[in-house]
Formats: sequence, C-alpha cells, structure tokens
Amino acid sequence: MRAPCTFQAVRPQTLGLIGLGAIGGSIARQVKQPGRGGGNGIAVVGWSPEPAERALAAQQGALDDAPARATDVARLADLLILAAPPSANLAQLAALIPHLKPGSLVTDVGSVKRGIVARAERLGIAQRFAGSHPLAGTHRHGFEAARADLFRGAVVYVTPCRNGGDAAREIAHFWEDALEAEPVVLDAAQHDAQVAATSHVPQVIASLLGDFLARHAPPGSTFGTGAADTTRLAASEPALWTEILLMNRDEILPALRVLEESLGTVERALEVGDAGALSAWLERAAAWRRRIGGSEA
Amino acid sequence: MRAPCTFQAVRPQTLGLIGLGAIGGSIARQVKQPGRGGGNGIAVVGWSPEPAERALAAQQGALDDAPARATDVARLADLLILAAPPSANLAQLAALIPHLKPGSLVTDVGSVKRGIVARAERLGIAQRFAGSHPLAGTHRHGFEAARADLFRGAVVYVTPCRNGGDAAREIAHFWEDALEAEPVVLDAAQHDAQVAATSHVPQVIASLLGDFLARHAPPGSTFGTGAADTTRLAASEPALWTEILLMNRDEILPALRVLEESLGTVERALEVGDAGALSAWLERAAAWRRRIGGSEA
Repeated sequence: MRAPCTFQAVRPQTLGLIGLGAIGGSIARQVKQPGRGGGNGIAVVGWSPEPAERALAAQQGALDDAPARATDVARLADLLILAAPPSANLAQLAALIPHLKPGSLVTDVGSVKRGIVARAERLGIAQRFAGSHPLAGTHRHGFEAARADLFRGAVVYVTPCRNGGDAAREIAHFWEDALEAEPVVLDAAQHDAQVAATSHVPQVIASLLGDFLARHAPPGSTFGTGAADTTRLAASEPALWTEILLMNRDEILPALRVLEESLGTVERALEVGDAGALSAWLERAAAWRRRIGGSEA
Repeated sequence: MRAPCTFQAVRPQTLGLIGLGAIGGSIARQVKQPGRGGGNGIAVVGWSPEPAERALAAQQGALDDAPARATDVARLADLLILAAPPSANLAQLAALIPHLKPGSLVTDVGSVKRGIVARAERLGIAQRFAGSHPLAGTHRHGFEAARADLFRGAVVYVTPCRNGGDAAREIAHFWEDALEAEPVVLDAAQHDAQVAATSHVPQVIASLLGDFLARHAPPGSTFGTGAADTTRLAASEPALWTEILLMNRDEILPALRVLEESLGTVERALEVGDAGALSAWLERAAAWRRRIGGSEA
C-alpha cells in the first residue's frame, strides 16, 4: 500500500506556484527562507488571483517573481504546484497545459486525489503529473497563515497517474529534499478511502457538533477544553470543505451511514438502560484512542 | 440562572473525602500543599476502597489521616465530599448519613446533579447538602492523576436542594476559599441540561468517531492532529461515562436525536450535491467555533 521514497532526482531550478494561501505560501516561504546554508538555489515564481497577495508574498521574500498571469508562471516552472482550492486546481490544470515549460512536472496539494489524477490522465499528461497531499493543514487561511516550517516532518501523500511512476518519484523527492517532508507514494483511490476516514469524516463530525452547539447549547453555557477540542476542526474554511466533501462523497457517504447507524445503537442502549452495551462501546473507542496517543490534555 | 458567590462562611476545620481518584486526590493535594503562607489550617481525612490508594495519598502528604472505614471519615468531617463515581456517591450518601458529624455539610463532585439532589431531599438532609460539579475533568484517573492545581480558576457548579440555599452558599465558599475555584450556584435541572450539551454530548460524539475509526480506518492509516483532537475525549474512563450517560439520558437522548437528524440532512445534501446547503451548514458551525475561541492549533 505504501512505498518509502529513496529515489534521487534532480532539484528543479524554478518552482512555480498557482495559489499563495496557507499551503502555497508556506511552500514558498520554506523554499526561500534565509539561513539554509547558502540557499538551495531554487527560484520561486508564484501567482494568486489576488494582486495584494502576490505583492505581499514578493515583498516578504517568499517569491523571486510574481507575474500578473498564471500562464507566465507555467512557462517558467520546472515543477508547477497547483495550490488553489480543489475545483480551481482542476480548472487550472486544463488551462495551463498548453503553457507548460517542456519537460516540466506538475502536482497539486488538494486533499482528494482520484479526480485530479483521472483528469491528468485524460488530458494526456500522465507521465508529467502526480497528485500530492501534505498532511499539514491548518484551519487558518490566506498568505498571512503561511509558515516556513509547515511541512517539516509532515507526511505528504504522492499519488501517481497510470504509468506515471517516474514523475511521482521526482515529485516525492522534491517534498523530501526541498521541504523536509516525509513523502509516501500511494494509489489515489486508496488515498481517498484513507483520508475519508482519518480527515473528512472527523471534519463532518466536528462541524455536526459545532452546528448542534451553536443552535442548542443553553444561553450562557461554558465550554471546557473537551467541547473546544472536539469541535476545533469546525473552524476550518467552509468554502474549501464544501468542495472537499463533495469531491470525496463516494467515500464519505457510506462512512456517515455507518456513523448514523452507530448513533442509533447508542440511543437504543441509553433508552433501555443497557450499561453493558454502552460500556463495551465506550471501551472500544477508549482503547483505540489511548493507542493512537498524541494531543493529550 | 447564575448567581455569583460573595457569601462569607466559616472554613471547615476537617475536610473528609470519600474517593481519592483524580478529583478527590486533587482536592486533597491542593488543600494540603505546602507553601500556602503557613497553611490554611484544614485537616484532611480521606478514604478509598483501595487500601494502596489510601496509603499512597497519606504517604505523599495529601491526607492527615486515612482511616480504614468510610464511616470514620464521615464522623470526623465538618465538610464531607463524595468523590467516588456517581452511583457509588448515591450509595455512600445513604450509608453515611447516620455517621455524619452533627452540623456538618455534605457535597459530591459528580457531573449529573438532579439525581443526587433529589436523593438528599428524600433522605432529609436538604439543608446540609448541595451538589458540586467542578469543570476540571481529566481523562486520566486514579490518585496518580491528582494535581495540586486542578481547580484553580475552574468553574464549579453548586446545585442547592430545595430550601438548601445556606448550605449551597457555604459549599460554594469552600470551593472559592480553599481551592481557588470560581463557584456558580445553579439549579440542578438547569445544570444537567447545560452539561448534556456542553460535555456529555461531546463525549458521545468523540466516542462515536473513535469507535468508527477503530473499526473502519484502513490499516496503516496516519491520524493527524484533527482526528486526534476530535477524538481526545474518547480516551475518558468508560465505566465512569457509562454511569454519567445513563444518569443524564433524559437530557442526552433528545440531543442525540437532533444530531441524528442533522447527520441525515448532511447526507442528503451530499447525495444531491447541494453545495449551498453544505456551505451554509459548515459556515454556521465555523462562525460558532471561531467565536468560542480557545484550543487553537
């Protein structure tokens, strides 16, 4: 299911970024940060639909050049990273193909991979494209939320196209070499099934509880760390998550139906006072949660 | 709904604790901690059903005396605090009444209050009992998890019996004076409705997701801070939470039915691809979550 990346590839001379939000901006910041032993020699060019964001990124030294058109970024980049929201990435991929520098590679950073991998195959760039998904999200957004250390030590899934193994290995190498991340090459369908469970369903659950509390908590209620932690993801960007949930709904919907059935089982155990069933259910969740560790209070 | 506590009361000379776990143990540790300007002059006697826990608490200076029988603690205490699990507290309350020191007060620390307040009224000690609920939980348990600062600045709900206002004020004063907590006097039924929403439902939701991930996450899945935070409460003590959920099921069940219906609405929006409905739902939860703040990542 996973393969560690040990392939050694050539470092791109020019990195192109389409989108300069928290993810795109963090890539630019880390590649261009001073004090990395004389620099890594990579030029970064980036574009955002917001001119103010382009200007801010250039002014803060995260970009070497910030052209006014996305096509100019595509023309210059040896590696082009699509770091816009998922549906914008799909549109940019199609629009920018005619402008790509010969021999260049393309990836994206969206958290759903089947759609964009299939799109790249249909557009005939299977050997130049692989999807990427850094597990380094933040619920903050925009270039202001960009950090020079967001990817250090973070798992980055890289999902190849059919017959696109070489491109995937080069892109995985870039994440490791330039961003100190830990790339894991994974099939796009397996990726989407896994993140449905580990990321997308937790987002739905956090928003479900947040929406409930927004509407039903008695006025003046005090929320402790428990309610705050359980709903932390609910603060994530609604427009972005609308796209993610819809793009991966084939994986998310069956999971939500399992959760709905499980909730019904808990309700029935409460109704009839079945302490044994409740306890076994709580125990199974507790054993799992204690095993995964992390984020202790 | 709430009243701040400004009543000045006499400090108990002897504090009695039934239960020396994370909550009872933390009360003992804080009252007996050295370096509080010459000490607060309160003697602490405590009992636990586990002799090793009694011995440990005495050995670490959290108790002045650790008699072998709970009735000996009741006989000595000016203020008796029941800090066992909720159903054990109900049983202890009935068992210890014949042994209480004349003129003493009694409280408990459980997170459901209607049942024990009604029990105290039926047992004829309405003017000597008020419930307490410190919002200072931990998912760790046992005396080893006890901390000398658990209650400092924490909200503690104090729920009076009918005609038990004076006892409630004295008990509230104890939390403020001896434990530096922030007592809030609240009707038991209002309390239980509020914590159903703010604490018990988040516990069910965290366990629901934990149980789902335990059974359905693909083998080898990586869980980021999002899944870890959303399920943190799932690590809480199953036996304790079985009691709490059953004791407050009249408040929790209607809430779970609202959540089940809400989950169904989200599923239908995903099925038909209704981006507007999904976005509005995510936005409502996000606005609420950003407003409550705290626990940022």
